[in-house]
Amino acid sequence: MRLSHFHLHTSKETPAEAEIISHKLMLKAGMIRKLAAGLYTWSPLGLRVLRKVERAVREEMNAAGAIEVLMPAVQPKELWEETGRWEKFGGQLLKIKDRKEAWYCFGPTHEEVITDFARNELASYKQLPVNFYQIQTKFRDEIRPRFGVMRAREFLMKDAYSFHVTDADLGREYQNMYDTYGRIFTRLGLKFRAVFADTGAIGGSASHEFHVLADSGEDAIAFSDGSDYAANVELAEAVSPGPRAAASEELRKVDTPTQKTCEDVAALMGIALTRTVKSIAIVGSDADGKPQFALALVRGDHAVNEIKLSKLTGLAEYRLATEAEIVEHLGAQPGFLGPVKPVKNVRVIADRSVAAMADFVVGANENGYHLAGVNWGRDLAEPAEVADIRNAVAGDPSPDGQGRLGIARGIEVGHVFQLGRKYAEAMKLTVLDDTGKATTPAMGCYGIGVSRIVAAAIEQNHDDAGIAWPEAMAPWQAVVCVINPKNDPAVAEAALALYQDLVKAGVDAALDDRGLRPGAMFADIELIGVPHRVVVSERGLAAGSFEYRHRRASEAENLDRGAVLARIGGLSQ
Amino acid sequence: MRLSHFHLHTSKETPAEAEIISHKLMLKAGMIRKLAAGLYTWSPLGLRVLRKVERAVREEMNAAGAIEVLMPAVQPKELWEETGRWEKFGGQLLKIKDRKEAWYCFGPTHEEVITDFARNELASYKQLPVNFYQIQTKFRDEIRPRFGVMRAREFLMKDAYSFHVTDADLGREYQNMYDTYGRIFTRLGLKFRAVFADTGAIGGSASHEFHVLADSGEDAIAFSDGSDYAANVELAEAVSPGPRAAASEELRKVDTPTQKTCEDVAALMGIALTRTVKSIAIVGSDADGKPQFALALVRGDHAVNEIKLSKLTGLAEYRLATEAEIVEHLGAQPGFLGPVKPVKNVRVIADRSVAAMADFVVGANENGYHLAGVNWGRDLAEPAEVADIRNAVAGDPSPDGQGRLGIARGIEVGHVFQLGRKYAEAMKLTVLDDTGKATTPAMGCYGIGVSRIVAAAIEQNHDDAGIAWPEAMAPWQAVVCVINPKNDPAVAEAALALYQDLVKAGVDAALDDRGLRPGAMFADIELIGVPHRVVVSERGLAAGSFEYRHRRASEAENLDRGAVLARIGGLSQ
Repeated sequence: MRLSHFHLHTSKETPAEAEIISHKLMLKAGMIRKLAAGLYTWSPLGLRVLRKVERAVREEMNAAGAIEVLMPAVQPKELWEETGRWEKFGGQLLKIKDRKEAWYCFGPTHEEVITDFARNELASYKQLPVNFYQIQTKFRDEIRPRFGVMRAREFLMKDAYSFHVTDADLGREYQNMYDTYGRIFTRLGLKFRAVFADTGAIGGSASHEFHVLADSGEDAIAFSDGSDYAANVELAEAVSPGPRAAASEELRKVDTPTQKTCEDVAALMGIALTRTVKSIAIVGSDADGKPQFALALVRGDHAVNEIKLSKLTGLAEYRLATEAEIVEHLGAQPGFLGPVKPVKNVRVIADRSVAAMADFVVGANENGYHLAGVNWGRDLAEPAEVADIRNAVAGDPSPDGQGRLGIARGIEVGHVFQLGRKYAEAMKLTVLDDTGKATTPAMGCYGIGVSRIVAAAIEQNHDDAGIAWPEAMAPWQAVVCVINPKNDPAVAEAALALYQDLVKAGVDAALDDRGLRPGAMFADIELIGVPHRVVVSERGLAAGSFEYRHRRASEAENLDRGAVLARIGGLSQ
Repeated sequence: MRLSHFHLHTSKETPAEAEIISHKLMLKAGMIRKLAAGLYTWSPLGLRVLRKVERAVREEMNAAGAIEVLMPAVQPKELWEETGRWEKFGGQLLKIKDRKEAWYCFGPTHEEVITDFARNELASYKQLPVNFYQIQTKFRDEIRPRFGVMRAREFLMKDAYSFHVTDADLGREYQNMYDTYGRIFTRLGLKFRAVFADTGAIGGSASHEFHVLADSGEDAIAFSDGSDYAANVELAEAVSPGPRAAASEELRKVDTPTQKTCEDVAALMGIALTRTVKSIAIVGSDADGKPQFALALVRGDHAVNEIKLSKLTGLAEYRLATEAEIVEHLGAQPGFLGPVKPVKNVRVIADRSVAAMADFVVGANENGYHLAGVNWGRDLAEPAEVADIRNAVAGDPSPDGQGRLGIARGIEVGHVFQLGRKYAEAMKLTVLDDTGKATTPAMGCYGIGVSRIVAAAIEQNHDDAGIAWPEAMAPWQAVVCVINPKNDPAVAEAALALYQDLVKAGVDAALDDRGLRPGAMFADIELIGVPHRVVVSERGLAAGSFEYRHRRASEAENLDRGAVLARIGGLSQ
């Protein structure tokens, strides 16, 4: 591609409306152009990147045995009524009335359509297992579309749906897709994690999200440094830090007149926050359904995890206790609460880490006082109820026993899901099994946000000069820049020859023959993130060299022609 | 591709709902599956064909210098109001209200969006000429969607839009796209014609439709056997058949008591229909806007062309005359009318062919009688008004003076159009010209119905056994069929080896290892239209040969391995 024949249109201005770096850089680089809220046109430059992602996804899906189809974007209401989602899906479903007053939607996902396709196409177990996928435009009517293509309303998605006679078959295909997603993101050159996910209300038996790691990611992920374990921080199991030490201090009362938080108490006492225990007063229900006052204990540096807490018996709909309830049960005000000698009818739930503590500090249940040197089994009974009720933090042992957890932020770009038989049952999809009996197939679904990957990759790969694409996603792998071609025809010729050699060698190369001044040209090429830049100049030619620079290198090098080809070809393998 | 791992799902039944052969065959072959009225899912088989068309279109557009973009399907109402098309476009525009009660449409075309894109992207003449295209899903809310993907509501289209400072530049790009379309349809292996088209109300200065020729086509096309000339029959100029012969008969009155049509009169008199003249009584308006009675004369075997007639002075809104008006002006009833001695105030318009006739037959303006041996200048005045007012017919001289016209039926699959400045003006798109002055660019637009091409190709290429794809559109170029692989492992091995050789040679091949009986297998492969079929059987292997058959050949041949490879490779060039 000669850039003089390509519509490259960068901007020096930083767009005011963009809140995150990928949105800013995509607008500055001219990759996208806003049409309306959450609707973007992909420019020639942007589309080159999008197509590279699309191609990698398609090739890996094909290699994994999935079969491509193409379903309509517009879907009839009747199918969505069969699964009850016409109402349940909510405001994100863009509903459309056609000229005959029939209702449709712009599909945000295709479970209904593929299940309808399957009940027409699939009749026998011999046709299973099968995995149909498509790469297709979706629409979700976000209340607040933002962040450019990161959360657009219209977006490009790869969605796959598999059908199986047995759960074991579904499990195998789930693993196949899990592995395939790993190959896709690895091939795209992205740092990512497969994260164990909550299956939520849909209730499948397994689900993983694939996150591209980036500091700006919306989700916090706990991952092991010694294994593949990764989970959303809120879902990651927080295990005990190890065995409890022996008691070494005496129980004593500490004067804490205004110190109501663990931080303040620790500061006053000059001890580590990890020596303190937070007591959170809540109200659940007892076996008879009556309100039950409880204290949830977590270490001072830990945060209670509401999801985990709500999974305990009687706490499905727990609430924080009122001050009156607290005073009634503990005789003190919030800020001075603790599990030692609770007055009456108090359920005490200790986080695993708290159960492993010795010589710790808690509120004294007396206004203005805390207790220090507290020890289980001596100053109060061994905890009756020990549970995982906190968020995992960096440094925790990995729940799988291998390594320790780190915390990273991630952007969800893929999701694999065992749907089970929910949709097949709702839409009466059956096939004959090998005994001739009708059976309801199990289904899996597997999504990748193709257009979102482009933005996520930028969040992960950028610097002050602009985007620094992984090689597989770059609009071009290499750009040959010509300096002042009009001064010396030999420069233009040498640049063209080098460019043609690169193309012949299978490199996706461009020739920047736009005739810009070097500064403007280099700024463009850095902004749009091309991995390899080669500069052809009169001076360089005289010395028999080209100036080569990798996008991530701090300095340029002067290389001869062979070295340039080797460098780019080698890196483009 | 091994068919045992591909979801091929043909049907023996002929679908009752399909009216045309392409729709029938696409359903029988399992290429598409109906989701709702005018909405189709492309199965794995159908999508393979669709993608081949898409790829050919994309590669040729790129080679022609057009640059690919991707615009949203959903478009805001505001843009359509700028051009006035929100109301004018009519019922085909699928209007959508989002959750914030803002109006959008599912784009049936993208003139508004690309012009909006251009007014943000294009600032200077230096960026022009430029031609942006996309291959994208469109929606037109047809009143009566039918014929499968031939007239679906949701469909895949390639639409391109070019921008130019001068009309001359537009003309050059128009010719470039015209030539590119020719290359695309030639590459796809389709018989087609570029047809001069009416620019209709949009009023561009040039427009051609590209038609795939097929007996079932909706449009009749007149084309020259001696040049590239082609036009819709209704638009093709009908030239005079040649100089008028000298009069050789006497004027005489013929008794035609019940013969009111040219056909009946010619039959009664035992003469050719080409000797008779039809007189059509119409009412237009005179120079003062008052109703003016007129006779339009065409040869008995010709049909009046209403479009051409309406372009004559005073006939823009002409209507057929009532019987009372006819009796008032001509003194006779319909069926016996003619131009000889019209009673009063009758405008006579003779088609060019009529003006060239001698010794012809017309109504006598007397009930029950016709006149024969009529000659211009002797029995009535030379025609005062001679014009082209009929449809062209087969055998007419071509209007460009080269060859004679034939008539074929066609299916419109492409359209190139000089839009001029209509959209740019409405949406205030300007660029600075080389003098620094703001100027409004001229635009061209160029569409191809990508999904429609698939159906049109089948209309042109089929037989009793099914589809007979042109090589470039076939789901696979070649299929290797294995007969009874379980009887003899050597057969399965030889088939696999042959299949792999074909793939290595760059042939898009499939291996039919589904284990079907030969009859069912061959019927499938013929139905889905694969050009090259090779059968590997125990008997063949014993004789050192494979059974080869081209889809269009009447018989199979036994060839050795080398000959098979040469045959398929050679044809697949």
